[in-house]
Amino acid sequence: MTRIIGIDPGLRTLGWGVIEVVGNRLTHVANGLCRSQGADLAARLLSLHAQLSTVVAQFVPDQAAVEQTFVNKDGVGTLKLGQARGIAMLVPAQAGLPVGEYAPNSVKKAVVGVGHADKRQVLHMVQLQLPGAEIAGPDAADALAIAICHAHQSAGGLRAAIEKARA
Amino acid sequence: MTRIIGIDPGLRTLGWGVIEVVGNRLTHVANGLCRSQGADLAARLLSLHAQLSTVVAQFVPDQAAVEQTFVNKDGVGTLKLGQARGIAMLVPAQAGLPVGEYAPNSVKKAVVGVGHADKRQVLHMVQLQLPGAEIAGPDAADALAIAICHAHQSAGGLRAAIEKARA
Repeated sequence: MTRIIGIDPGLRTLGWGVIEVVGNRLTHVANGLCRSQGADLAARLLSLHAQLSTVVAQFVPDQAAVEQTFVNKDGVGTLKLGQARGIAMLVPAQAGLPVGEYAPNSVKKAVVGVGHADKRQVLHMVQLQLPGAEIAGPDAADALAIAICHAHQSAGGLRAAIEKARA
Repeated sequence: MTRIIGIDPGLRTLGWGVIEVVGNRLTHVANGLCRSQGADLAARLLSLHAQLSTVVAQFVPDQAAVEQTFVNKDGVGTLKLGQARGIAMLVPAQAGLPVGEYAPNSVKKAVVGVGHADKRQVLHMVQLQLPGAEIAGPDAADALAIAICHAHQSAGGLRAAIEKARA
């Protein structure tokens, strides 16, 4: 059994989703949103760090996966996203987890089957693949999609590890 | 007496510089470079966070100032810088310091007198304003310049605080 946390970074709202993988079977554990609070940027980053650290401590994932987005139209937006993404990468690394990175197209392809799916399709397919999960919002659905993508990518490695453990 | 840490964020090399301010007088305390190490991005961010946290714990500044750069030509470069900048803002915030942000032009104007100075001019003027300081490199000089800029900007507030403390 492997627990994966997927993270969709954002400075205002950061989505997260935790799933469990046993062989080919995926199970939903939890998902949610960290909303940054504070009067200035430093306070907001501190708030995101604290909230995401709490999530990692509560659900104790084994691996993490973070979305790799960089193509915003403006430098200011990309810098803001980068700052949030720095926190999203740091928190699991501080907990000693390996952190995978996936481009949005890889995530969509893994979950929907095509690289140019819209947010509704992603949400729909995440719901289908994790039946019964109550999803906190589009950013949390994206985070669960990132976790599912990571599970698919590392399925070979996971299966080998499970077989080895059983032997 | 107020201690200020200036930080010039970068993913490979992050410059830092600590100065002391008493009234109008600035004194050099220390400066250096944090070079990120690690096989992947998460490890590099973790390494920057650990090194910068050690610097803050060692020199116990009262205030922090971080350079506000965003205009790179490409989104990938801006995102990388953003991730490093997230760490540069987080570390002093975790230590409870107020974190000021200054655009490169404001920093150059405060230190050199003009907004379009080059790196050599900045280094030269930092040397003049902090006599005797051995400067670890251009990124450390920039960090000291950011700290000097912050000292100038908040000089009014500092002076008032010092006078109040003396009364």
